[in-house]
Amino acid sequence: MNASQSVVVTNIQRVEKSIVNAFAAEKIGVATVHEAQGGKGLLAPNITPIYPGAHVAGIAVTISAPPCDNWMIHVAVEQCRAGDILVLAPTSFSDAGYFGDLLATSLMARGVKGLVIDAGVRDVKDLTSMGFPVWSKCVSAQGTVKETLGSVNVPIVCAGARVNPGDLIIADDDGVVAVARAQAADVLKKSQERETLEEEKRKRLAAGELGLDIYKMRKRLAEKGLSYIDQAELD
Amino acid sequence: MNASQSVVVTNIQRVEKSIVNAFAAEKIGVATVHEAQGGKGLLAPNITPIYPGAHVAGIAVTISAPPCDNWMIHVAVEQCRAGDILVLAPTSFSDAGYFGDLLATSLMARGVKGLVIDAGVRDVKDLTSMGFPVWSKCVSAQGTVKETLGSVNVPIVCAGARVNPGDLIIADDDGVVAVARAQAADVLKKSQERETLEEEKRKRLAAGELGLDIYKMRKRLAEKGLSYIDQAELD
Amino acid sequence: MNASQSVVVTNIQRVEKSIVNAFAAEKIGVATVHEAQGGKGLLAPNITPIYPGAHVAGIAVTISAPPCDNWMIHVAVEQCRAGDILVLAPTSFSDAGYFGDLLATSLMARGVKGLVIDAGVRDVKDLTSMGFPVWSKCVSAQGTVKETLGSVNVPIVCAGARVNPGDLIIADDDGVVAVARAQAADVLKKSQERETLEEEKRKRLAAGELGLDIYKMRKRLAEKGLSYIDQAELD
Amino acid sequence: MNASQSVVVTNIQRVEKSIVNAFAAEKIGVATVHEAQGGKGLLAPNITPIYPGAHVAGIAVTISAPPCDNWMIHVAVEQCRAGDILVLAPTSFSDAGYFGDLLATSLMARGVKGLVIDAGVRDVKDLTSMGFPVWSKCVSAQGTVKETLGSVNVPIVCAGARVNPGDLIIADDDGVVAVARAQAADVLKKSQERETLEEEKRKRLAAGELGLDIYKMRKRLAEKGLSYIDQAELD
Amino acid sequence: MNASQSVVVTNIQRVEKSIVNAFAAEKIGVATVHEAQGGKGLLAPNITPIYPGAHVAGIAVTISAPPCDNWMIHVAVEQCRAGDILVLAPTSFSDAGYFGDLLATSLMARGVKGLVIDAGVRDVKDLTSMGFPVWSKCVSAQGTVKETLGSVNVPIVCAGARVNPGDLIIADDDGVVAVARAQAADVLKKSQERETLEEEKRKRLAAGELGLDIYKMRKRLAEKGLSYIDQAELD
Amino acid sequence: MNASQSVVVTNIQRVEKSIVNAFAAEKIGVATVHEAQGGKGLLAPNITPIYPGAHVAGIAVTISAPPCDNWMIHVAVEQCRAGDILVLAPTSFSDAGYFGDLLATSLMARGVKGLVIDAGVRDVKDLTSMGFPVWSKCVSAQGTVKETLGSVNVPIVCAGARVNPGDLIIADDDGVVAVARAQAADVLKKSQERETLEEEKRKRLAAGELGLDIYKMRKRLAEKGLSYIDQAELD
Repeated sequence: MNASQSVVVTNIQRVEKSIVNAFAAEKIGVATVHEAQGGKGLLAPNITPIYPGAHVAGIAVTISAPPCDNWMIHVAVEQCRAGDILVLAPTSFSDAGYFGDLLATSLMARGVKGLVIDAGVRDVKDLTSMGFPVWSKCVSAQGTVKETLGSVNVPIVCAGARVNPGDLIIADDDGVVAVARAQAADVLKKSQERETLEEEKRKRLAAGELGLDIYKMRKRLAEKGLSYIDQAELD
Repeated sequence: MNASQSVVVTNIQRVEKSIVNAFAAEKIGVATVHEAQGGKGLLAPNITPIYPGAHVAGIAVTISAPPCDNWMIHVAVEQCRAGDILVLAPTSFSDAGYFGDLLATSLMARGVKGLVIDAGVRDVKDLTSMGFPVWSKCVSAQGTVKETLGSVNVPIVCAGARVNPGDLIIADDDGVVAVARAQAADVLKKSQERETLEEEKRKRLAAGELGLDIYKMRKRLAEKGLSYIDQAELD
Repeated sequence: MNASQSVVVTNIQRVEKSIVNAFAAEKIGVATVHEAQGGKGLLAPNITPIYPGAHVAGIAVTISAPPCDNWMIHVAVEQCRAGDILVLAPTSFSDAGYFGDLLATSLMARGVKGLVIDAGVRDVKDLTSMGFPVWSKCVSAQGTVKETLGSVNVPIVCAGARVNPGDLIIADDDGVVAVARAQAADVLKKSQERETLEEEKRKRLAAGELGLDIYKMRKRLAEKGLSYIDQAELD
Repeated sequence: MNASQSVVVTNIQRVEKSIVNAFAAEKIGVATVHEAQGGKGLLAPNITPIYPGAHVAGIAVTISAPPCDNWMIHVAVEQCRAGDILVLAPTSFSDAGYFGDLLATSLMARGVKGLVIDAGVRDVKDLTSMGFPVWSKCVSAQGTVKETLGSVNVPIVCAGARVNPGDLIIADDDGVVAVARAQAADVLKKSQERETLEEEKRKRLAAGELGLDIYKMRKRLAEKGLSYIDQAELD
Repeated sequence: MNASQSVVVTNIQRVEKSIVNAFAAEKIGVATVHEAQGGKGLLAPNITPIYPGAHVAGIAVTISAPPCDNWMIHVAVEQCRAGDILVLAPTSFSDAGYFGDLLATSLMARGVKGLVIDAGVRDVKDLTSMGFPVWSKCVSAQGTVKETLGSVNVPIVCAGARVNPGDLIIADDDGVVAVARAQAADVLKKSQERETLEEEKRKRLAAGELGLDIYKMRKRLAEKGLSYIDQAELD
Repeated sequence: MNASQSVVVTNIQRVEKSIVNAFAAEKIGVATVHEAQGGKGLLAPNITPIYPGAHVAGIAVTISAPPCDNWMIHVAVEQCRAGDILVLAPTSFSDAGYFGDLLATSLMARGVKGLVIDAGVRDVKDLTSMGFPVWSKCVSAQGTVKETLGSVNVPIVCAGARVNPGDLIIADDDGVVAVARAQAADVLKKSQERETLEEEKRKRLAAGELGLDIYKMRKRLAEKGLSYIDQAELD
C-alpha cells in the first residue's frame, strides 16, 4: 500500500467485545486507564467534551481527513458497527466544523457511541439533546467541503497520540485515551486493580489519615532535604 | 465623516422586524444561516456563550471601543431598541471584563436580547441567573476605564467578521453569525429551504440509509481513486 | 532561609475568621473584591472553574511545585485547616493533572474549601459530584511524579498574581482574586460599600434610567468631542 | 453580484502611483501611517515578516481563498501589475503553506512587491535569497490543494483588518497596515507632518530633554493625583 | 518489551548513508520532501529553527523523555553516530529548556548534525556561534531535572508526527519532516524528480508565463463557475 | 501608601555598580544566572528579544502601567540613571505597542541599557539600527493613549516573575531573569563558580568523554531500572 494512496480498510480487527463492555459497565475513567497502561496514549488536553458527564468506551474507526474536508466521514460511517467510536485527525490543522447533527443521526442509527476529533464540530445544541457525545478541539459553525480524499482505518496521530483502527478508546470529562488492541485485556486488569486499591485509600483519606502516612513519604522527603520552619521564626 | 472622529450614528436602518422574528421563532441555528448565505459572516470560534442553550436573533447595534475602556457601552445603551443585540469590537486586543450585571440590567430594561463581544465579560453567575446571554472571548473580572471615546453604530470588524449597524445577528451554542441587512430576507428563505431539506435527510439517515447513497457519492469517490482493502489482505 | 531551599512554613498567620465568613456569607464576588482593592490581585483569566456556580472565600495555603510533580500537595495537606484553600503554582509551565479525587477526599476531610492551580486537574466528573470546586488552567488526565521537592507556604506568583500564605482567596465563575492579609478587613468594608451602591443603581437601571444620566456622563463625552449624526444624513 | 459567487474583479481602481511612490521613497513606516490615519487599518500583530528589514508600499490585489487551497493565487497573479502587493485571507483558519518560491518567481516577473497572508508560507530560505518579502501568520511546509474556488479583488477581512482591492498597503518590521484608497493622499500628508514633528522631538530628546517637559505633562499628571515618594520614606 | 518500561535500543538500523548524503548534498528542502512522500511526516509548524539558514539531513535517534527532565539526552548521546540527529518528544507538554551548549559540545564531538525537540532550548547565542542547529518549540532558560527515566530509540510522536529510530530527518527554515526508513530511497528519487520539474517551471514563470497557462487551469476554473467582472461594471 | 494609589518612588536603592559591571563584562548569561539562584526569577519564555545577539545586565526601574496606556513610561524616564533597565508590566493583558524609537532616543540619552516589557513594541527597525535592545511579548504598531495613571518603582509581577525596583536584570537571547538586590552579590559568586565548572566540562565533552561518565550516571540509571536491548533482539 503506497503511503500517499487513499484507502479504506474494511473488516478491521477489533478489541474483544467483553473487554470493551467491562470498561463501560465499570465506568473506568480516562485517568485510571492512562495510569494503568504506563502513561501512554493520552490525547492532548485541548480535546474536550461538548457537554459534561459523558463516559464512553468503544472501538476506534479512524479517519485521516484533509483539512476542512469532511467527505471521509461519510465513507467511514459505512465501516462502523455498534460499539464503535469515530476518531478523526486532519492531515493539517483545521478548526472547521466537520460534524453536525445529520452525521450524528446516521451514526446513532448504527450504534456508534461517539466522536473524537482534532478539529471542530457544530450543531452542539442538537448533539447535546440527542445525547451523542463528541470530544473536539473547538465548536465551529464553519462548514467543510467534499473535494479531496483521505483514508479510513489507517493508523493516525490524533492530538498527539497514536491511534490504530480497532484500538480501544475511553473518553470522559478528563479527555480521551487510546489503548492498543493487543494490550486491552492487560490494561483492563490493571485498571481494575487500581480501582480496588484506590477505593481502599479513599476510605482511609476520608477518615482523616494523611497521604504522608499512608504512602510513607516522610522519610524520603526528609532525605531529600525538606525542612519545616515555624512562621514565628521567620518574623 | 473623518475616519478618526468619534461618532454615534442615530436612527440606523434595521432589518425588518418580521424577518428577525422568523429566525427567532423557528430557532434557525448559526450553522444553517452561515451555510445559507454562502459561508460568510461567521465570527471566529473563540467567541463562545457564557452558558449553554441560548439562541438569539436580533439587530446589531455596533460599538468600536478602545481597549480596556467600556465608556461607549453606556453611550450605546441609549441607541438600543427592543430586539437589538450589542456587538462590541475593541480597536486593539483586550481580554478585560467590559460588561457585567449592571449594564445587563440596563439593557434588559430596554428589551435588548444579548451581547456579542470580542473581549471579556464578568458577573457571569449573575448574567446566567438573569438569563442575559453573552458571547465573549473570555470571562474576566478585570475592569475597564472610562477615558477614551470610541464610536457607536459604525461598521466594525468583530472577531474577524464585518458587522454593520442594523445587520442581523444570530447566536447560539455554535457561535455567532452576522447577516447583511440587504440580504436578510433572502437568507431567511434559503435557511428555511435548508431546514426542510435537512429534515427529510434526517429521517432517511435515522432509518439507516447511508449518506454515501443519499448523496450519491460512490461514483465520484471511485473516480478520485478511493480503494477498499480488506484488513486480512494487509496482515 | 536560602532562596533555593525547600521549606514548609508551619503555623502561618491567617486572615481573621470573621472576615472570611463575611465574604462567604454575603457571597461577595470576585469582580467586586477586585475593584474594591484598587484593581489588584486578580489571577489570569485562563484560570477557570471546572463546574459553574461555585463561590468560595478562604485562606491561602500556598504550594510552589516543580513542573509535573505533585509531591508537595501531599505535604501541604497536613498544613491545611478548615476554611483553607490550596493555591499551587508550578515553577515552570505545566498542564499535567496534579490533582484528582483522592486528594480531594483528603482535603474535604480537613474542611478545605477548594483548590486554585496554574496547571491541570483530573477526575473532574468525581470532583463535580463531590462538590469540591477547582479553578485550573486545564483539565488533563496526564499524571505527575513524586521526585522533586518544592515548598509550602512561601510567597508565590500564581497565574500572574502574587499570593502570600495566609492571604484571602475569593473564587467564583469570574475567576480568582487574592487579597493581602493586612488589607482584608479594609477590602471587606469597601466591597460591602460597593454592593450597597450597586444595589441602588441596579434599581434605577432596571426602571429604565440611563447610565449616561445616573453617572452624569453627557457633559464629559461632549467635551471630549463625541458627536451624534443621524443615519439619514449619512446616506 | 451574489454573495457566495466566485468572481475575479478586473481593472480595479488603484491608489495613484505618485502617492505610493512617496510612501516607498520616504520609507514611511507602519506605525506612522497607522497613527496618521487615526488608529485604523492595522493587521493583527501575529502577521510577521519572514526576514527582518523589508519595507514595502504597494497596492492591494485581494484574495479570498478557501482554507488550505491556493488555487486562487494563480488566478490573482494575472490581475497583478508592477507595484502591487497580494493580500490573502482564508475564509476559515488555516496555517498551511499557500505560497513558495515558484509563485514568488511568477510575481517578481510582474513587478509585484510582496505578499501579505493570514496563513502560512514555505520555501522561506529561497524567498529570503530572492528578496521577496512575505508577511505571514507562520511558516509551514504543509502544502495546499487546488479544488475549490474563491474570489479575487473583492473586499476581505485579513487578520482583523478590512482591505479593499486597490487600497494602499504598507508593511515593515512592525507589521502591516491598510489605507483606504480615498484617504491615501490625506494619510500621506499627515504621515509626512508626523515625520517632521517627530524629527524635531527626536533631536530634543537626544539632547537630554524630557518628554515630561516637551509634552508639558507634569501639570496633568499632578491633577490626576500622581504623587512622588522618596524611597527613604518607605523604609 | 512492556509498554511502560524504560529501554534503550542499541544498534538501530539506519537509512543508508548514501541516501542521506544525497539529500544533504543536493540541499533538498523540507517542502519538497514532504510533497514527494505524499504529504506525510511533517512536524507541526511551531517547531522552528533557533537561527535562519540551516539545512540538515540525518538519521533519527529518538528520545521519549518525561516533562522537564533531560536525563535521557545524556543516555542518548552514547547511542549517536556521525550523521545522526536527536529527536526528542516529552511525554507531556513542556516548554522547559532541555538542552544547552554543553550537550551540544558533546554531540558535535560525535558528529551529530542537530536536534529536533518539542520543548525548549537554551544557550541560544552559544549554539548559534557553534553552528549547532536546533529546531524547537521555544527558547527557555528554565532548566530541567534528572530524576525520571524515559526511553531511547523507541517509536515516538514528535510535534504530531510519528518518528521511528533510524528514520530520515530533513530540517530547514520551513520546519522538519520525517521519512520512514523503508521509503527513503523512493522519496529521494521522487524529490529529485520534483526538483527537476520545478526548475523548468521556474524558468518559464521567471520569463513571464502564467501558472494559469503552464498548468492549464483556465478550463477547469471556468467549469467550476469562476466569472470575471470588470470593476467598471460594479460601480 | 494605599494599594490603589499612583506613586513614583524616587531614589530607589540599587544593586551595587561593581556587581552589575561584573555580570556585563563577563557576559554571564540568563541560563547560568537562573540556575545559580536556584531556579527563580525567570520571566515567561514568550518574552523574546527584538533582534538576536544582545546581552545586558542592569538595574530595574519598574513600571506598573494600565493596559494600552504608555503615559507612565514618560514619567519613568526621569527616574532612570545610566545602567538602568526599564521593566514594564501592564495591569491587564495588552499587546499594544507601548514603546518606539522616540522613547528609546530619550532613554539612550540617559544611558539606559534596554527595555523589558510584557506587551508590544514598535519601530523595531529603528530600534535595531540604534542598538537599543528590547525584550517584549510581541511587535505591534498599535499605539497607546496617555489617560490613566500607573506607578513607577513599585514591586511588579512581569511575565510571571516578581521584580522589585533596584533588582538586577540580566537579558540575552534566552530571555530575561531578575535577581533580588539582596542576593546579587551571592548570585554573582555562584554564577562565576558555575562558569568555571562548565568550562572544564566543556573541554572534556569536546574531547569525546560522555556525560554518562563525567557525571557518573550509569549506576543510578541502572538502579532506576533502565535496560538496554539490541535492535536485533526486537526484530
